[in-house]
Amino acid sequence: MGKDLIKLVGGPTIQDQTMPNDIDMAKENAHKIVDFIADYYKTLQDLPVLSQVKPGYLSELLPDSAPQWPESLQDVLDDVHQKIIPGVTHWQSPNYFAYYPSNSSIAGFLGEMLSAGFNIVGFSWITSPAATELEVIVLDWLAKMLKLPNQFLSSGFGGGVIQGTASEAVLVAVLAARDKVLRKVGKEALNKLTVYASDQTHSSLQKACQIAGIYPENFRLLKADQSSNYSLDPEALSEAISNDLSSHFIPFFLCATVGTTSSAAVDPLRDLGKIAKENHLWFHVDAAYGGSACICPEYRHYIDGVEGADSFGMNAHKWLLTNFDCSLLWVKDRSALIQSLSTCPEFLKNKASQENAVVDFKDWQIPLGRRFRLWPLAHSLLSVFVSFHHYRTRTMATS
Amino acid sequence: MGKDLIKLVGGPTIQDQTMPNDIDMAKENAHKIVDFIADYYKTLQDLPVLSQVKPGYLSELLPDSAPQWPESLQDVLDDVHQKIIPGVTHWQSPNYFAYYPSNSSIAGFLGEMLSAGFNIVGFSWITSPAATELEVIVLDWLAKMLKLPNQFLSSGFGGGVIQGTASEAVLVAVLAARDKVLRKVGKEALNKLTVYASDQTHSSLQKACQIAGIYPENFRLLKADQSSNYSLDPEALSEAISNDLSSHFIPFFLCATVGTTSSAAVDPLRDLGKIAKENHLWFHVDAAYGGSACICPEYRHYIDGVEGADSFGMNAHKWLLTNFDCSLLWVKDRSALIQSLSTCPEFLKNKASQENAVVDFKDWQIPLGRRFRLWPLAHSLLSVFVSFHHYRTRTMATS
Repeated sequence: MGKDLIKLVGGPTIQDQTMPNDIDMAKENAHKIVDFIADYYKTLQDLPVLSQVKPGYLSELLPDSAPQWPESLQDVLDDVHQKIIPGVTHWQSPNYFAYYPSNSSIAGFLGEMLSAGFNIVGFSWITSPAATELEVIVLDWLAKMLKLPNQFLSSGFGGGVIQGTASEAVLVAVLAARDKVLRKVGKEALNKLTVYASDQTHSSLQKACQIAGIYPENFRLLKADQSSNYSLDPEALSEAISNDLSSHFIPFFLCATVGTTSSAAVDPLRDLGKIAKENHLWFHVDAAYGGSACICPEYRHYIDGVEGADSFGMNAHKWLLTNFDCSLLWVKDRSALIQSLSTCPEFLKNKASQENAVVDFKDWQIPLGRRFRLWPLAHSLLSVFVSFHHYRTRTMATS
Repeated sequence: MGKDLIKLVGGPTIQDQTMPNDIDMAKENAHKIVDFIADYYKTLQDLPVLSQVKPGYLSELLPDSAPQWPESLQDVLDDVHQKIIPGVTHWQSPNYFAYYPSNSSIAGFLGEMLSAGFNIVGFSWITSPAATELEVIVLDWLAKMLKLPNQFLSSGFGGGVIQGTASEAVLVAVLAARDKVLRKVGKEALNKLTVYASDQTHSSLQKACQIAGIYPENFRLLKADQSSNYSLDPEALSEAISNDLSSHFIPFFLCATVGTTSSAAVDPLRDLGKIAKENHLWFHVDAAYGGSACICPEYRHYIDGVEGADSFGMNAHKWLLTNFDCSLLWVKDRSALIQSLSTCPEFLKNKASQENAVVDFKDWQIPLGRRFRLWPLAHSLLSVFVSFHHYRTRTMATS
């Protein structure tokens, strides 16, 4: 990042680089970034998907302390090209098959640009009513496309909310469930709370339990193998719950998966939901990976039984052509979330909130602040629905 | 969002809207978004800062369920203009003085565009070495600019990490501290753990304690008033700790603030740090608001005493011209974080991680996935440092 002396005498000034002082310069630079990204996509399929650098490569290319003078945009882009891109593992490459497939789209990218332009921090309704209301509306749209039961819609006691990741979605579900049961049995009983899932469940459940203070020895990962296509066996679950009840534990949380990380296994929601209901467990369905496909009628059966769930999560940033991070969570009883996650300090009070006339998503999530993440989703949605529709028509025609 | 019939016969097709099928169309559309955003900034100062809409306004303007066909980009932008912008509270307006001031910059916006273009999910080093390494390097640069003690640098046992928000920063600090003390005294002692802060502390600390399962009645918010400029009185802290110790509580966490939300009060770090050390408390400094200013030598004294802290947080998305969300956290003992937040399932194992040759930031935060948020920061940094330098020169010249 050299050429400091040239910058010192002829480089951009502060006024050049802060918004909105010079909008025309911003515009010119933003157009250059668009071209840079387009060029990146044109060469993308020829780049090695997995970065080939060795640990520590970048510290040999960058100075030990921050440069004292700014660079021109072209110098920054040259640095990105020469120093950063070799260290990138290309998630958007058409040859990328790790974790889950390339997930963005033109619509997703354009939506992110709009979000970055507005740069809103929409934690309460009043901080940008459009951010909250669009999120409520589009999550209702998606719930209808997935044919989720009406209890998950915002018109009743439930509703949908965007979380950063499925990890945060399962964490807020665990917290709501933990606090709900502890309000009944007393918080000293934390050591008796037990959690159930198959051993194919994503590690985010284990992490959520660690954070929530659930005792590790009360975390029941039931073995799932080839005999059940790696899905959770309802009989094994029943037995585990019975054993725990007879040992005076308090079973409180069940997590089922639709599309496990290792083998895309699907747990039998209907049977699991009945057991959860009989035993008063909070039933969370993690469809982070598989959920999007269930918009298609021919795949909807994978979430049959979701009627019995208390919460349902799905990652728009996996199959729904949306940029990371955009994980969707629906709950039947939003008050359980809010009771766990709400704070109301003096500096956040406002008339609309105090009159209970609005949704304040700050009380449905871990952080206070939140991005206006709805753009990618709302925008993508239009093309995505058509994609699925098109795919369906095509498969029906050829089957 | 009408005109469905026209779209049906003449609208964009699926291939038009998914990347990277048609890069030239993506480029053309992205240029249009740049122009749209530039036009927004040109009119921004004439718009009412606070949105004037009534609760529920948007549901009257949008359909009940998702449109079946996609729209042209121009139609989407018209909708944004007519239906969304009236519902936006303009955080980037030069007339915006709520919460904290307009926070973005040209550099911040361009950085976000680049991030969105790559759309990397950099949770482990291998998922994009450049993302992790650039974060490590730039957080070290910033630590040096703030003159944080060397223990906060990545070269020793500490290091910096980007969190989404200061709420998440204080939460991971509370979790690391909770688990550290419970490993010593046994997890059944959770009900005895006590937390200390002034009553001017941000509500995120209370929320972090709720999530971590700290008993609400063990949360000591000590009164701060005009007599101490709303800062936490070390004597009051000492007294509270003594009382708790004599009642067999276990004091474990102290949070001090540099720049409180209500009055920008600054807690006396040096004196508080001594008390924390004597009593083996984890000492977290929340400089979310005030931290950036301490890059200037004439304001650095506000964080004198940070040597005694275990963790130090500062929001780049407040004063450091970076887009939301970008909250910086430094810790002296990264192993405490990792012990609380690490999981290592089969599907995330890889050679670089198993050889302990790299940093995997998934183990320093709540979620698994993470955006490549470094662009805004690395890029802004260049201009920001100059801004502060310029400001300093100017104030020194006029003082």
